[in-house]
Amino acid sequence: MTALDCNKCWAECLDVAVEVALKAGKLVQVAAKQEKNVSTKSTPTDLVTEADQQVEDLIISTLRDRFPSHKFIGEEASAAGGKCLLTDCPTWIIDPIDGTCNFVHSFPMVAVSIGFAVNNELEFGVIYHCFDGTLYTARKGHGAFCNGIRIHVSKEKDVSKALILTEIGAKRDQDTLNIFSGNIMKFLSAPAHGIRIIGSSTLALCLIATGSAEAYYQYGLHCWDIAAAAVIIREAGGVVMDTSGGPLDLMSRRVVAAGTNEMANYIVHQLQPINYERDDIDQGVQK
Amino acid sequence: MTALDCNKCWAECLDVAVEVALKAGKLVQVAAKQEKNVSTKSTPTDLVTEADQQVEDLIISTLRDRFPSHKFIGEEASAAGGKCLLTDCPTWIIDPIDGTCNFVHSFPMVAVSIGFAVNNELEFGVIYHCFDGTLYTARKGHGAFCNGIRIHVSKEKDVSKALILTEIGAKRDQDTLNIFSGNIMKFLSAPAHGIRIIGSSTLALCLIATGSAEAYYQYGLHCWDIAAAAVIIREAGGVVMDTSGGPLDLMSRRVVAAGTNEMANYIVHQLQPINYERDDIDQGVQK
Repeated sequence: MTALDCNKCWAECLDVAVEVALKAGKLVQVAAKQEKNVSTKSTPTDLVTEADQQVEDLIISTLRDRFPSHKFIGEEASAAGGKCLLTDCPTWIIDPIDGTCNFVHSFPMVAVSIGFAVNNELEFGVIYHCFDGTLYTARKGHGAFCNGIRIHVSKEKDVSKALILTEIGAKRDQDTLNIFSGNIMKFLSAPAHGIRIIGSSTLALCLIATGSAEAYYQYGLHCWDIAAAAVIIREAGGVVMDTSGGPLDLMSRRVVAAGTNEMANYIVHQLQPINYERDDIDQGVQK
Repeated sequence: MTALDCNKCWAECLDVAVEVALKAGKLVQVAAKQEKNVSTKSTPTDLVTEADQQVEDLIISTLRDRFPSHKFIGEEASAAGGKCLLTDCPTWIIDPIDGTCNFVHSFPMVAVSIGFAVNNELEFGVIYHCFDGTLYTARKGHGAFCNGIRIHVSKEKDVSKALILTEIGAKRDQDTLNIFSGNIMKFLSAPAHGIRIIGSSTLALCLIATGSAEAYYQYGLHCWDIAAAAVIIREAGGVVMDTSGGPLDLMSRRVVAAGTNEMANYIVHQLQPINYERDDIDQGVQK
């Protein structure tokens, strides 16, 4: 395909992604009102419901019908042993219900996240907030939008005026919790304006894109939590990087995002790392 | 007045409270889109804006016109030296913008809270979520409602299935932060499903009332953060108590709320206290 063909093709994919995210979001809304059948995955606090699987099936089957040659990385397919492998092929990266723990409690911060990468690069992202109906979209080079209105990150550089977001990972051993706590305390002592924990990585990242918070960091999230949001934040003028300060590694399960480079670098230099197994390790062989 | 007269009178007051909360909420929505003039109060992270004062003025002047004999306790009037004194007189307890730090950042968790007490007892509460337009109301003996639909707390008793909410108080000295962190770590180690920090005490308490989370605790909040929410939680079937396990003391700046007595008692027994100066200390004399 020529560059012009690709451009048209990815624009069409984005339109389909929006359509599918809205449809999936409606399914989440219906499921949220019903009894939930809850199981656990990697730890007793890493929850999954039948709805996660149903919504992912809906998204992937719809997209596969439309784009049979494309590849898929989905949270539930990966939990079932599917590979998290990013190649040059057009690849959809899907979190059917981001904030499953919130979903289980009907805590109103739950999202559908659909990212899309080609040639190993993130091309566009769509995130739908299932409880309040907010739709975040962005495509590389074309800006970021919230319900169709252009959004921009905060340009604040001073941590003493920052609202900082993070999430608790699935690991709850004492060493991990001590590092998690130590990281939070550094920012509260700074003192930053505040720390927020809302229970949905993708929605927290969207709040960086809208400029409602200055920085986000997390250890233990997955490629499907970052993929769509990374495009949205970059297109809103922000930065997304590895917690080491290097380029974002989608499979590394760690991220720093911020409105400015200065804020991101400040965060990077404060953090003590928490180690999680990479997303692209072959679970069948190495677990 | 006879009991029947009172009943009619407080029902009318509640109707006016709803009307005023919606009007105040619209003012907050407009102010949220404008440049904010931010100052600090007790600490560098205890923020206040011109909008807080304007919204409180709107609420109190409207209510005073309608009910000239009533008393008022407001966040901004108190900051200016007004007394937090609950008597037998009908008294309105007002937080014009709960979640001022969120408001400053346009982080979408901001509420108007209007509580009402007579004979030293909380009679009704109205809380309006300014960003998503959700209205929570309750009147003693008449149930709790979210947008007119009856709400109920979670009946979960097991902390390992609980979502627990808390907030960071204004104090950021190392001793306070260590206790704050230690309390959170106890619940994460339990392990509870999760901890959330959304930056608005009143909205967090409303999420207990809707059953979206199992428990809430906080040190450092004020009577205007608790007053309306306490009625809403109790009318939704939940419990609101002091962090010592005794009855709620509205002026004590500490609270535990939960769906069940078992959950509340569990929380009470885990907490290490953080001391804040009471709301009813005469600031002019004792500060």
